[in-house]
Amino acid sequence: MAEHVYKKLELTGSSTTGIEDAVSNAVSKAAKTIHSLRWFEVTEIRGGIEDGTIAHWQVSLKVGFTLDD
Amino acid sequence: MAEHVYKKLELTGSSTTGIEDAVSNAVSKAAKTIHSLRWFEVTEIRGGIEDGTIAHWQVSLKVGFTLDD
Amino acid sequence: MAEHVYKKLELTGSSTTGIEDAVSNAVSKAAKTIHSLRWFEVTEIRGGIEDGTIAHWQVSLKVGFTLDD
Amino acid sequence: MAEHVYKKLELTGSSTTGIEDAVSNAVSKAAKTIHSLRWFEVTEIRGGIEDGTIAHWQVSLKVGFTLDD
Amino acid sequence: MAEHVYKKLELTGSSTTGIEDAVSNAVSKAAKTIHSLRWFEVTEIRGGIEDGTIAHWQVSLKVGFTLDD
Amino acid sequence: MAEHVYKKLELTGSSTTGIEDAVSNAVSKAAKTIHSLRWFEVTEIRGGIEDGTIAHWQVSLKVGFTLDD
Amino acid sequence: MAEHVYKKLELTGSSTTGIEDAVSNAVSKAAKTIHSLRWFEVTEIRGGIEDGTIAHWQVSLKVGFTLDD
Amino acid sequence: MAEHVYKKLELTGSSTTGIEDAVSNAVSKAAKTIHSLRWFEVTEIRGGIEDGTIAHWQVSLKVGFTLDD
Amino acid sequence: MAEHVYKKLELTGSSTTGIEDAVSNAVSKAAKTIHSLRWFEVTEIRGGIEDGTIAHWQVSLKVGFTLDD
Amino acid sequence: MAEHVYKKLELTGSSTTGIEDAVSNAVSKAAKTIHSLRWFEVTEIRGGIEDGTIAHWQVSLKVGFTLDD
Amino acid sequence: MAEHVYKKLELTGSSTTGIEDAVSNAVSKAAKTIHSLRWFEVTEIRGGIEDGTIAHWQVSLKVGFTLDD
Amino acid sequence: MAEHVYKKLELTGSSTTGIEDAVSNAVSKAAKTIHSLRWFEVTEIRGGIEDGTIAHWQVSLKVGFTLDD
Repeated sequence: MAEHVYKKLELTGSSTTGIEDAVSNAVSKAAKTIHSLRWFEVTEIRGGIEDGTIAHWQVSLKVGFTLDD
Repeated sequence: MAEHVYKKLELTGSSTTGIEDAVSNAVSKAAKTIHSLRWFEVTEIRGGIEDGTIAHWQVSLKVGFTLDD
Repeated sequence: MAEHVYKKLELTGSSTTGIEDAVSNAVSKAAKTIHSLRWFEVTEIRGGIEDGTIAHWQVSLKVGFTLDD
Repeated sequence: MAEHVYKKLELTGSSTTGIEDAVSNAVSKAAKTIHSLRWFEVTEIRGGIEDGTIAHWQVSLKVGFTLDD
Repeated sequence: MAEHVYKKLELTGSSTTGIEDAVSNAVSKAAKTIHSLRWFEVTEIRGGIEDGTIAHWQVSLKVGFTLDD
Repeated sequence: MAEHVYKKLELTGSSTTGIEDAVSNAVSKAAKTIHSLRWFEVTEIRGGIEDGTIAHWQVSLKVGFTLDD
Repeated sequence: MAEHVYKKLELTGSSTTGIEDAVSNAVSKAAKTIHSLRWFEVTEIRGGIEDGTIAHWQVSLKVGFTLDD
Repeated sequence: MAEHVYKKLELTGSSTTGIEDAVSNAVSKAAKTIHSLRWFEVTEIRGGIEDGTIAHWQVSLKVGFTLDD
Repeated sequence: MAEHVYKKLELTGSSTTGIEDAVSNAVSKAAKTIHSLRWFEVTEIRGGIEDGTIAHWQVSLKVGFTLDD
Repeated sequence: MAEHVYKKLELTGSSTTGIEDAVSNAVSKAAKTIHSLRWFEVTEIRGGIEDGTIAHWQVSLKVGFTLDD
Repeated sequence: MAEHVYKKLELTGSSTTGIEDAVSNAVSKAAKTIHSLRWFEVTEIRGGIEDGTIAHWQVSLKVGFTLDD
Repeated sequence: MAEHVYKKLELTGSSTTGIEDAVSNAVSKAAKTIHSLRWFEVTEIRGGIEDGTIAHWQVSLKVGFTLDD
């Protein structure tokens, strides 16, 4: 693993069902264009409320991937 | 949305099942007296342990609502 | 000043013009119902973007006021 | 304890004698109107200086109380 | 509860299913050797990605337990 | 808004006049290549001093935009 | 002092009287099994409220001790 | 720029008009006795309220200057 | 109070008796050379342990004072 | 320098030898595709351990570069 | 890697030569009694000064290791 | 060590070679005018990039020294 270089992107995934799905949606979206995703780090959990009920979860995360050639 | 003023309250919801339910319980409780809830921000996740098992989840969150007349 | 007790509320003011106006809007709104406001502390500066331009500033702040009888 | 919802208020107590008294003053004040206070969390310790001597301690704290019916 | 002394350990639990299970796995593991576990505090949520999908969740937490004789 | 995925970029805008213009310059620059900018979050305010006067303001911010197809 | 290695433990001491006693109780407890305690760092001050009065102070701290043979 | 040493001072500037003027006042004051000021970093934005209106802005900042001979 | 400029110094006071005395010692020391001290902010509480007992408290604080002529 | 806009990327460089080399590896990698790199800020220092020895250092950093045309 | 549980210890290593050696000393010490060390995270860098020169570096770090049977 | 009062200064040292030298440069500079330096605490590690290579390291630190007569 030594000498590798990784890049981190910051994303916000949303979901009507919960935290894990919001993260999963963001990872899936990123995986469409980046094939070397390695890890994620959750940085913020928030969401929207409509009619007194949680309408969607919004979870911000950083995803790390390999930059090697 | 410009010129609106919002107020944030800090709540702690608890649940025996998990994080989403603890947040949902807090939002439901607040919605009984506040009709203009707009968003929430999770600030802390903790809980109690009894007999070596998680007895309940306690999630602190801020809820924001509109103060306009 | 000794022995006084103060309470802090957390507000979010918005404005189309800038940070100072967003704070001022929040303070004015709070002053309608609280007459002993003493100080504020800015906790977050963010805003919305529409058509590639800043549409409004949203500034979160705590306002402190005297609780004494 | 499960399924309860708590609310947190942020207060600043002051005292000429020290930190514990500043916190105690804030808790006593809050207890006059809220009967279900459960815990407190100190968030800031500061104070005023007059004539080269500490004139008063100002301690900010959050107090948590039960919202249940 | 006064005069008790508690110790906190920092653990990282992992799970293929989600955050609650990762915490639960860590608590269960700790409970095998420590019988007086009282509470936990989540300090970090991250995880590994394989083939564009979340492979496992890794949640760091502190667990507190009584040190009394 | 549910199920959307957003990406955040971190920028530093500068201006000789003030904070709002520094943010505005950064947003305008980003808007030239990204058409779905939604919000910004200020993360740092600093600047340069020349001849005892503020020469320019440098404001770091995150801008969020929609990743949906 | 060079080349030494220290270990830090995280404890929570409680006391009905105040912050210093809560720290002192935690240090005394740790000193029963660790003989090379060198320093402490307070990380959190909180407590319980009963009948509108502070029932006990709970102070979290890290204690550092020498690991050398 | 290599091998230089800088010193940072922490100041609080105030102004009745806004954040930029409060910073500018602090920089001007410091520039009277320090001729090698290079940069500033805003660390806190707060202010006083009188009669329901913002009476003054108080902005804390660090200013950095060259210590070289 | 508007238009004033304040400077903050960071000190560490120590005491064998407790937190308040450590802060008081630092303020007294600073007051010998600075006559316009206005406020203090506690930033860190730690201390030394000898023979299993707290030997001294070390409290870091910032003191603010007026820079006006 | 006024009116420029900068972008920050977050990278993680690794090295078997130490912190400076891990940062240097990340900067070199970024410099292959970005020609206007201006500064870096270290955000995290961690690493892997194998057979009781440090196997590699992993240093996260932000790199800033000019966005001007 | 899924379903594993890890424990983190906090150590402070010291060295007269530099940061990497201080970390390495702490890891080596821990490796004498713990055989499953996996990673480390640096949390603080400080040190002692004697006669105007750095006498030793003190680096605090967390080390993570596997708790599995 | 009890009853002493210490003062902390914040410096930024720079070096073309690495972190330790940047800190050492700052400490040496401070030692020319302050004879009772006792400890340092690193608060920020950053640096400049020129032609795709690290041109200099800039390390901010606080140095503590005795104020006693």
